[in-house]
Amino acid sequence: MKIARIDTASRRVSYSSLPKELLPVGGRGLIARMMNEEVPADSYPLGGKNKLFICNGPLAGTHVSSAGRLSIGSRSPMTGGIKESNCGGTAADALAGVGLRALVLENLPEKDSPWMLIVVKEGDISFQPAEKYLGLGNYALSARLFEDFGKDFSLITVAQSAEREYLNAGIAITDMYGRQSRMAARGGLGTVMGTKRIKAILIDRKGTFRHEGVSSGAFREARKAFHQIVTSCDRISVLRDYGTASTVMDVQRLGALPTRNFSEGRFEGAETLSGEHIHDLIQERGGDGRNSEACMPGCIIQCSNVYPDRQGKEIVAPLEYETLCLMGSNIGIGDPDQVAEFNYICNDYGIDTIDAGGSLGVMAEAGLFDFGDFEAMKKALHDVPVGGFHGRLVGMGTGIAAKLLGVRRAPVVKNQCMSAYDPRGVKGTGITYATSPMGADHTAGLTVFMPVDHHDKTGQVEISRKMQVGRSAYDVLGLCAFLTAATAMRPDAVTAMLNSLYGLSLEPSFLAETGMETIRQEIAFNRAAGFTSRDDRIPEFFREEPLPPFNLTWDIDDEELDSIFD
Amino acid sequence: MKIARIDTASRRVSYSSLPKELLPVGGRGLIARMMNEEVPADSYPLGGKNKLFICNGPLAGTHVSSAGRLSIGSRSPMTGGIKESNCGGTAADALAGVGLRALVLENLPEKDSPWMLIVVKEGDISFQPAEKYLGLGNYALSARLFEDFGKDFSLITVAQSAEREYLNAGIAITDMYGRQSRMAARGGLGTVMGTKRIKAILIDRKGTFRHEGVSSGAFREARKAFHQIVTSCDRISVLRDYGTASTVMDVQRLGALPTRNFSEGRFEGAETLSGEHIHDLIQERGGDGRNSEACMPGCIIQCSNVYPDRQGKEIVAPLEYETLCLMGSNIGIGDPDQVAEFNYICNDYGIDTIDAGGSLGVMAEAGLFDFGDFEAMKKALHDVPVGGFHGRLVGMGTGIAAKLLGVRRAPVVKNQCMSAYDPRGVKGTGITYATSPMGADHTAGLTVFMPVDHHDKTGQVEISRKMQVGRSAYDVLGLCAFLTAATAMRPDAVTAMLNSLYGLSLEPSFLAETGMETIRQEIAFNRAAGFTSRDDRIPEFFREEPLPPFNLTWDIDDEELDSIFD
Repeated sequence: MKIARIDTASRRVSYSSLPKELLPVGGRGLIARMMNEEVPADSYPLGGKNKLFICNGPLAGTHVSSAGRLSIGSRSPMTGGIKESNCGGTAADALAGVGLRALVLENLPEKDSPWMLIVVKEGDISFQPAEKYLGLGNYALSARLFEDFGKDFSLITVAQSAEREYLNAGIAITDMYGRQSRMAARGGLGTVMGTKRIKAILIDRKGTFRHEGVSSGAFREARKAFHQIVTSCDRISVLRDYGTASTVMDVQRLGALPTRNFSEGRFEGAETLSGEHIHDLIQERGGDGRNSEACMPGCIIQCSNVYPDRQGKEIVAPLEYETLCLMGSNIGIGDPDQVAEFNYICNDYGIDTIDAGGSLGVMAEAGLFDFGDFEAMKKALHDVPVGGFHGRLVGMGTGIAAKLLGVRRAPVVKNQCMSAYDPRGVKGTGITYATSPMGADHTAGLTVFMPVDHHDKTGQVEISRKMQVGRSAYDVLGLCAFLTAATAMRPDAVTAMLNSLYGLSLEPSFLAETGMETIRQEIAFNRAAGFTSRDDRIPEFFREEPLPPFNLTWDIDDEELDSIFD
Repeated sequence: MKIARIDTASRRVSYSSLPKELLPVGGRGLIARMMNEEVPADSYPLGGKNKLFICNGPLAGTHVSSAGRLSIGSRSPMTGGIKESNCGGTAADALAGVGLRALVLENLPEKDSPWMLIVVKEGDISFQPAEKYLGLGNYALSARLFEDFGKDFSLITVAQSAEREYLNAGIAITDMYGRQSRMAARGGLGTVMGTKRIKAILIDRKGTFRHEGVSSGAFREARKAFHQIVTSCDRISVLRDYGTASTVMDVQRLGALPTRNFSEGRFEGAETLSGEHIHDLIQERGGDGRNSEACMPGCIIQCSNVYPDRQGKEIVAPLEYETLCLMGSNIGIGDPDQVAEFNYICNDYGIDTIDAGGSLGVMAEAGLFDFGDFEAMKKALHDVPVGGFHGRLVGMGTGIAAKLLGVRRAPVVKNQCMSAYDPRGVKGTGITYATSPMGADHTAGLTVFMPVDHHDKTGQVEISRKMQVGRSAYDVLGLCAFLTAATAMRPDAVTAMLNSLYGLSLEPSFLAETGMETIRQEIAFNRAAGFTSRDDRIPEFFREEPLPPFNLTWDIDDEELDSIFD
């Protein structure tokens, strides 16, 4: 298990072995450690001192279900703090197959240097010219790369948004079916890759590296036990049948569905955006449509879908909850066909649907177009690669768009748009938005599935802390967050796999410890980068404006927020 | 001497007496004290908890030369920190004449409340409807107000930029000749006034209030002695003959003249922008042109000019150094007629020429138009009241424009544009930009006239500290900074006036003490608002890019910056 460092200026590659203590630490944990050791906290995010870390977790490539999340990290152009953004797809396993825990893109080529591809094979990393792929979106780019290099690669790509150095440029990863639609979307990491003038990284999927421990009886037993816990979980079967869209009506009932730029908590079009409705539509329309699909090899959750048009032709895959809301209810759109089309466009141009939807919301509030005006918003999205007024507002994300337009009601923390839970109605998740070193981000500690009154602030700080630590641990291990519904209470099932795979003797408490340690390191980075407790705040308007229909306000004390990780 | 508090929601007015210890503390000092006591540091700058403080100094209305600066302060929408912006004109004296040291605009009217005027007479403050003046620029607005209310008022007005809540909206004040062209331009204070839905404040110039001490022999003697120091100063006569434009060739020689977005230190068109050339042009063209004019009653410096076109018709008055550079060399324009036209447009729409020029510079760097393209830039300026793409980029200022356009080379500190001294070439002023609680601002501590090597960092922190404290003291006292050329070494001449006027016994050290105390209070406010030492930094590119022709870089240690006020 090695780390490959790629100097994007000299194009030299060097390898180092992963120290033993880091064998069970991958993904977000490895990023937090390397960032603190190697990247000066005050370095310019788009400058030569910043690095891009691409890491898998310690269970990648071992046929553990949902253990192939790929974590990408850097100093974020969007938040200015440390960032880790992870996604499914095939790259994490492919990286493990060529014997790597991490790729580190370092340095910066000289201005006007040609853009390059990086081809990663087992023991061989090479550069190839990329000029002919410039200007392509993720879908056309991946098609061309598969044509030119063959299909045995997992691709890590950036689109026009990164070429334009937008703050809302993400990185796309190939899924199981060759779609370039898995996005490490948040925090502008695509632009960090773009500044290093790398258009794509191709990782050979035919690598032969395997951990010795994979074939041991102990590991196989542990893996089997883990899978049994997952398959017996009710919540997991909901995800399989209805995907993340199943959450729409839950949050609608809570009155916390971001609607028309977070001004209401229920949307009159929620039912047509709901998991139930989408499930039925997919079934009716048939054709390419799928209600259940895995995004990574061997995943038994299979929460993804393929959303087809009326003729059964795929519009986008997958169509997920956060997009249905940020590019649906939040901008006054209730037609899932329209949301799906927006989703495809965002994937193609490489922009995060959450921050793009947030931008469209503040643009509507500023009067650039009406909420629900599909055509005007589509035009704005298609302006993203062009770099015009509306395209830049979308491309730079919600916070900057709100600043330029003078919209006070910017639903951002650390300049990153909130996801699809109004913090007034799901208070624990609001606490996560405020205090996570990642900026507003549900994946850093979603609380909505806890059996508590989400309108009541009592005990929510503790809930958010637990969820943040738990999610952090899973991000360190490259495990999909959706597993937690089944396995959160069984850290022993995870350490059993790590121990048998690597010959370790970790206690079950390792998960909480590594989760917390990672958050501490991230906070240390952010503090060194100039963040203070003032950055751990939900915008004032959430405190001032009661959210219909339950007239909820944001009422968590700042002191409570500041002591969450004490 | 009273403070009048105006609740802009209830339209109630209340008065309080100035406590004795604040008799010699006005302007910036009073603002720093009241801000810390009354405005929560985390309040939204455009919200109801923020206040707008309009203060004169303790010598206003006493016929002391250049003692009628009007200080306007608030939590700045532009920087997010405390802000004091001061200007000449007639309002400070008028305010003293109606017995006031300060007007405080408090609270916020309900959304969609009608805009109002505030008419301030001796012992009587009333509201008048302002709807008919909406949409007017400062020049047309003042003309209409003089028509409707008579000419015996000094006007404090906001233009379209404030109605649109731009971050770069300033406040205009009437000069000696009825021109609405004296600007408290920086930091977006016009927008704070606009959020309170006040289009103009009319202050009666016929107020009869006089301090008892004014007619005392001791005061008259002290004033006379002060004036003698001023009139005998060589630098003051340069300012009288050539105005602030006299600085152009000094800074050109230093290789520190911001040129094409701070990418060069000398501009090929500097000579046509120079004070000498402008002086001769004004003389040749005659007509309305004036090389020397006072901006406030009784000023013996008279540094202002009236700049006429080829036909002798006034284009703008005054045309000053910072504008000649930020809207000249910094955007590749060498024709003073063009700069004068831009200046007029900015005054009319109520935007700061420094941050507007900074915006145009980053817009040119981003390729929206070429440097020197007068017509394209004029179009962008005329788009300010319209609120289109280019207009908003100008209206929101350099920092936000750079963010939206992805221009790294944003010459800002605390989101405020640097003025016309490249920090690499005038290092002491760079230190002021970095460390002043006001953001990048030469008026907070200009060092360029000190007889030292401005390229050499040695001792510059100490020089900046002294200048910052000295400037702060003058801002507290409502004294024009240009006096310092003559009187900086004679604080006794100032305290002699204060003592005889108010029956005090201040030591000459009072100036340094009140200057430092004010800065300390400002820093305390900013710290409470979330600022850290990371905000006291010159952007990284000044360290990385050597500035032609002397290949200077920014080389002040961060530790030195952080200890400047220890």
